[in-house]
Amino acid sequence: MSCPVIILVEPQLVENIGMTARAMMNCALTELRIVNPRDPWPLGDVHHQRMMAASSGADDILQNAKLYATLPEALADLNYIYATAARTHDMTNRILTPRTALPEMAERIQGGQKVGVMFGRERTGLYNDEIAFANAKITIPLNPAFSSLNLAQAVLLVGYEWYQTQNNTPGSQLHMGHTRPATHEEYLYFYGRLEKALDERGFFVAEDMRPTMTRSLQNMLQRAEMTEQEVRTWHGVLSALIGQRRAPDAGENGDR
Amino acid sequence: MSCPVIILVEPQLVENIGMTARAMMNCALTELRIVNPRDPWPLGDVHHQRMMAASSGADDILQNAKLYATLPEALADLNYIYATAARTHDMTNRILTPRTALPEMAERIQGGQKVGVMFGRERTGLYNDEIAFANAKITIPLNPAFSSLNLAQAVLLVGYEWYQTQNNTPGSQLHMGHTRPATHEEYLYFYGRLEKALDERGFFVAEDMRPTMTRSLQNMLQRAEMTEQEVRTWHGVLSALIGQRRAPDAGENGDR
Repeated sequence: MSCPVIILVEPQLVENIGMTARAMMNCALTELRIVNPRDPWPLGDVHHQRMMAASSGADDILQNAKLYATLPEALADLNYIYATAARTHDMTNRILTPRTALPEMAERIQGGQKVGVMFGRERTGLYNDEIAFANAKITIPLNPAFSSLNLAQAVLLVGYEWYQTQNNTPGSQLHMGHTRPATHEEYLYFYGRLEKALDERGFFVAEDMRPTMTRSLQNMLQRAEMTEQEVRTWHGVLSALIGQRRAPDAGENGDR
Repeated sequence: MSCPVIILVEPQLVENIGMTARAMMNCALTELRIVNPRDPWPLGDVHHQRMMAASSGADDILQNAKLYATLPEALADLNYIYATAARTHDMTNRILTPRTALPEMAERIQGGQKVGVMFGRERTGLYNDEIAFANAKITIPLNPAFSSLNLAQAVLLVGYEWYQTQNNTPGSQLHMGHTRPATHEEYLYFYGRLEKALDERGFFVAEDMRPTMTRSLQNMLQRAEMTEQEVRTWHGVLSALIGQRRAPDAGENGDR
């Protein structure tokens, strides 16, 4: 699938162009357009090296970046254009958060549109005349008392939301390497051994407290979401604590 | 409401500490803890100035930052600890995306817990022994072919998700300064004038095309979500195009 075009309007620092490329690469964005940068292109050796160092290896994006003398040329082939801007302008505008804008962009792209996102100069952002070229504005909700972002960080946050539209990592997962979650039977068997050992050692001084204590211990063990391997380790721990060389279950013995 | 504590474990570059403070300020995070930084604290003048310059004015956070010699001291008062890590480790771990982890953090904090997020060294991240201190791991879904983030950018993405949990900016809104959305009646009145003017000038050559053309023009006008001010402007445009000095409606005359 193609992706939104990132358009830097008159960027001032080559380091920020490099860091923008890095942020784009982090987020699997590939197409960079640069409009009238302060340092004339092709860059001299020193500027080129500074940009490359800041990009931390996102060379492909910089090598494929396209340079434009004017903004209308850079926008010419786009069907829908977003302008990023922190401040409120007097103009009438559709204002979107990145969380709303990027899924919308993904839908437009799936529908065959070519979309782009404009980012303004480091100091002064986009001018009103440039924002007027856009179909919609993106404003990133951030601390209103301190909302100024570095250029590449603004690109990163927009790119991050783009990547989330393309990605289906589960919000929460239990990573467990080569083992698997324990079964209820395995929990019960371990708890049975534990309770028996505690019983033999007089842990339950008042018999009427046993149900409460049982619930409490079982509850904690289940909340830990143990793996099968971990249950075996705890069998080993229990065996060691009660001075049993080897637990009754042949498969058990802990893992270390 | 209090907020998650940001914990930098053995950061190497003072610039990254400064940029972390800036990212935290952007996201209304206030509490920074620094564990055994490479450059000894208090910093010498040169390092201090470089850190302050990188923070772009987030001085409060740096002045209130707390220094710890060891990680256990930095974590001692926390109830729930998250470790950020890009790579998969062999350990069994709860792995969350920031989008899932930060709302969960907000709930914990509302429930009275003190939570913290650990970020590792620039080059090598957190060690496995440090991740083992955490209750859960946060992995930011990013381009697997290029997922290495600058330290401050990782803090920014986590902070950004934090700020979104605390913020209720509408995903999409039509900002319209001092005017208001046009009413259906105002649309209809304008379209009526337009159709009459077109009629008088023989626009509808084939009468059977009129309904299609009307629908198409009305549809486009309504899709633009005009403001009352914009409708008046278009009345002025129409008056100018048909050579009418002043439109029939007294309230109309365009706004420029």
